Amino acid sequence: MRSRPVTLTSVDSYVEGVHFRLDPGWPEPAQIGARALAASLSDLAAMGARPAEAYVALGVPERFGERRALELMRGAAQAAAGAGAQIAGGDLVSAPILFISVTVVGWAAQESDVVTRAGAQPGDLLAVTGAIGGAGAGLMLLQRGEGARSDPPALRALARLRAPRPRLAAGLALAQAGAHAMIDLSDGLAEDALQLARSSSLAVEIDLQSLPLEEGLHELCAQLQRDPYELAASAGEDYELCVALPPTALARAREVLARSEGLALTVIGRLSAGAPSVAFRAPDGGVRRLRGYEHRI
Amino acid sequence: MRSRPVTLTSVDSYVEGVHFRLDPGWPEPAQIGARALAASLSDLAAMGARPAEAYVALGVPERFGERRALELMRGAAQAAAGAGAQIAGGDLVSAPILFISVTVVGWAAQESDVVTRAGAQPGDLLAVTGAIGGAGAGLMLLQRGEGARSDPPALRALARLRAPRPRLAAGLALAQAGAHAMIDLSDGLAEDALQLARSSSLAVEIDLQSLPLEEGLHELCAQLQRDPYELAASAGEDYELCVALPPTALARAREVLARSEGLALTVIGRLSAGAPSVAFRAPDGGVRRLRGYEHRI
Repeated sequence: MRSRPVTLTSVDSYVEGVHFRLDPGWPEPAQIGARALAASLSDLAAMGARPAEAYVALGVPERFGERRALELMRGAAQAAAGAGAQIAGGDLVSAPILFISVTVVGWAAQESDVVTRAGAQPGDLLAVTGAIGGAGAGLMLLQRGEGARSDPPALRALARLRAPRPRLAAGLALAQAGAHAMIDLSDGLAEDALQLARSSSLAVEIDLQSLPLEEGLHELCAQLQRDPYELAASAGEDYELCVALPPTALARAREVLARSEGLALTVIGRLSAGAPSVAFRAPDGGVRRLRGYEHRI
Repeated sequence: MRSRPVTLTSVDSYVEGVHFRLDPGWPEPAQIGARALAASLSDLAAMGARPAEAYVALGVPERFGERRALELMRGAAQAAAGAGAQIAGGDLVSAPILFISVTVVGWAAQESDVVTRAGAQPGDLLAVTGAIGGAGAGLMLLQRGEGARSDPPALRALARLRAPRPRLAAGLALAQAGAHAMIDLSDGLAEDALQLARSSSLAVEIDLQSLPLEEGLHELCAQLQRDPYELAASAGEDYELCVALPPTALARAREVLARSEGLALTVIGRLSAGAPSVAFRAPDGGVRRLRGYEHRI
């Protein structure tokens, strides 16, 4: 007898005029569809869940046209397939602005396999997968009308924004390696780490200079006149995973992660007893309180 | 050992400027929430499914405000609870216009309990629950700025539009009574019967004068200068059920329906072999091709 798996669900909306524009340089229709799927898939990744079905509610203005709507849905379907899921239903309506709301249903074999935001323990390390700050820099480039740049740092940052890759295999691997708590980086590390701190009722301290920056971010940030570490701490949409795990699990987590997606796992801080909060320790020893970003264009 | 039930899902969006306005006389916030749930719940009702969880993606413009957003969610939660479901997750984002996308997940004990649009047989009767045309007349009143009318026919029509009641118990009862195919009346009988005809690859003939009109519709339609039967055939949002069933099942279906929701079941036509189509037979013997309505305000 096979026990019934645990079902997990994530909902996310992506809205014209708030999260993106339909202007040159901004994500293409297929990328909008893929991005809308990625956000929900990433949320499931952070639970260590396997996505199964996605349901898409699409609101389309007349000016968008049928051809672009089909491209959008093709991008959504490809993103779902790439994550081992399929679009199993949906609804198409007219709307004054383009919006796409995605509900993704996933599963885990049993309750104890599911990682939440609430399981972190005092003494746990805080770590992030891959590199961060790229999508935030990409957004700044679009806002400055520099979406057509073709130098490698700009291309890399724009690709992070336009074609996010939810860390599904990494999420599963980290769950199996003994992660205590996880959250995906959608609203920015400052905001997402605070969610994890609150859910786990712990204080978080992060070493600002330890953040694994996207390649080329130093160069871009010099042009953008932004501190790259503060940008990486506050900008969102990188869709990497932020994980709390016991020091004893670190080596194993790094090993499975390298094997599953070839991703680095960088320790950026630690959790301790205390009022839920996130403090960023600067090189001068001072503490900065940074804010997540608000996902507005 | 209990077998795993069949899961069924429905998605529906309700969009400001397309399906409703935020003006006096139009649905209040709580009614908007309830209406958004009702559409998805009604779709499950037509499958003979039991709704379990609902996921709500809400896009809210700043001008709408937090108080009204909470009222909307309260209305949605009440509508879910009234159907035996609960809102199990969701997402709130800023948006230029108000929209609400609902995904409802329901279940049936086994595959053979599920009624689709595709199971109708030649010789089946076509029947509808309750009364129709009320919501369409209510929408016309709102469009004419007559949403504050308090005469009983207007009140009844406006209530059908503002507070739809998905026919969940009726759907289950009809499924158990041997319904071959079912669809809910959201886009208007002309459109919804055509969907059923196409899915079942059959021709549908409907006796226009047999349609069970909402009480007071004759009176309202005289004011609105519309033929009440044509309005009932083409306007939508009544959320009654349209069912194909063998003549031998009619008495039993009427009995269980009267017991479950106290609803009438009115035979309005029949299905036969032929190219998928819907013909409305008029009293003069002529055939009218009517169109469903487009859900636009």
